[in-house]
Amino acid sequence: MAGKTALIVYAHQSPSSFNAAAKDAAVQTLTAQGYKVLVSDLYTMKFQPSATAADIKGDLKDPEHFVYNDEACAAWKEGRLSDDIKEEHNKLLEADLVIFQFPMYWFSVPGIMKGWIDRVLTQGFAFSLQNMYDNGIFKDKKALLSFTTGGPESMYLPDGINGDINIMLYPLQSGVLHFCGFQVLAPQIFWSVAHTPPDARKALLQAWQTRLKGIMEEQPLSFAPTELFDLTFQGGFRLRPEVKEARAVQPYGLTPGHHLGKRLPPDNQTKPAPRD
Amino acid sequence: MAGKTALIVYAHQSPSSFNAAAKDAAVQTLTAQGYKVLVSDLYTMKFQPSATAADIKGDLKDPEHFVYNDEACAAWKEGRLSDDIKEEHNKLLEADLVIFQFPMYWFSVPGIMKGWIDRVLTQGFAFSLQNMYDNGIFKDKKALLSFTTGGPESMYLPDGINGDINIMLYPLQSGVLHFCGFQVLAPQIFWSVAHTPPDARKALLQAWQTRLKGIMEEQPLSFAPTELFDLTFQGGFRLRPEVKEARAVQPYGLTPGHHLGKRLPPDNQTKPAPRD
Repeated sequence: MAGKTALIVYAHQSPSSFNAAAKDAAVQTLTAQGYKVLVSDLYTMKFQPSATAADIKGDLKDPEHFVYNDEACAAWKEGRLSDDIKEEHNKLLEADLVIFQFPMYWFSVPGIMKGWIDRVLTQGFAFSLQNMYDNGIFKDKKALLSFTTGGPESMYLPDGINGDINIMLYPLQSGVLHFCGFQVLAPQIFWSVAHTPPDARKALLQAWQTRLKGIMEEQPLSFAPTELFDLTFQGGFRLRPEVKEARAVQPYGLTPGHHLGKRLPPDNQTKPAPRD
Repeated sequence: MAGKTALIVYAHQSPSSFNAAAKDAAVQTLTAQGYKVLVSDLYTMKFQPSATAADIKGDLKDPEHFVYNDEACAAWKEGRLSDDIKEEHNKLLEADLVIFQFPMYWFSVPGIMKGWIDRVLTQGFAFSLQNMYDNGIFKDKKALLSFTTGGPESMYLPDGINGDINIMLYPLQSGVLHFCGFQVLAPQIFWSVAHTPPDARKALLQAWQTRLKGIMEEQPLSFAPTELFDLTFQGGFRLRPEVKEARAVQPYGLTPGHHLGKRLPPDNQTKPAPRD
């Protein structure tokens, strides 16, 4: 993949963790494939997760009524965002592939990574009301979540106590990544690594490296195509009536699951089909 | 509600925001009802959102392989957590009702509030594998999410471009609040307040105050009862086979929606039935 750039946004406190090993395995494999690899190691960078006025250089547009989103968007247009955000913007602009590597905290990303999402995916830079989902600004880029869990996979099946992992990931995969246009690749889930013996962990890392070799050729997850919706305030950004009518006769229709993306067979999530 | 305590975990940067007004309205109404009201104003407190070794006093159990959850759990048992976490623990112990007040950022809580969740809901203190969901440690407490959105409600309906708000809230309402045992009350959603005229905003705040007067008598959202699951590692924490069989004949069965809680009619979310 000569000429391609990968960005790994990485959040674990310890260089001896499985997450660090997964990050290192990705750096090694992608570099060997010819990628330029950038890493944002959030804890080492002491990345600041809170969205505050400190992110804006110069005068605020409306200091009496501070609205982070509005101030950050204006600052982005005028080159007045803080240097740490600008650096992340530059990495994102260059990236063809973005991997988020983290231990799942409370069925989502850790606070430090949520802060990266809040502060780096600035309105105007990463999305606008005109450019979202299929028409999103990053539609030529691919992204995926790669994470470890505490519990085993069975807890995250549709009949497991925690509920379907695809529903848990929906706000991140649809609401963050696909919202910005990213082609979202299947998540790389390392189930319950703390209870996995060393040899099996090594095999998980090897499968991850095998997957990474062909990752740019993977089919992204499918989401409801944006063109099915009436993207006007009068239309309420809802499914077009003719689409609803046409789909109503199909079993289960489009809702409530139409947005959840395709559930891959469990095997595919950690062991994609071998390539070459 | 003499003798009752409410905790408001609040995250907005500006005291002139609608979120501040919603927080102030809650403080005023609940105080007038006889509650003791505690507020954690996260930005003013400069609450630290990153989960790091700085949260642990004294020696780490395993400094070579730092696992936040394990170290924090051990430190909690031994009274070695940092003072800011201890203070939040004490507030939570006292609270009968917890209100999270925030502007929705990326279909979830802002990073600073995710950091509160990560750092304050310590294993042992807030949950354990023996005490989760219906048997959760906080099962005698109630909690709810109260938040503002950028977009209108139509974008968050099951046929809206963003998908069903209940699915968006599932990781927080089920995975965080109900996981710790909280009785989860219907979310208080202030849709698109930036595009709401001042008079209508005032009416929203009044409806919130009316709701708060009877909030401790509300029926919580329903989740799949924990007793339906086989809570053993052999059983995989999945639905018991006899439950699956019994429910299979019901339309749509229990899955995939069985975990999503009951969707209230839109009117009920912001305008609960008047009381007395």
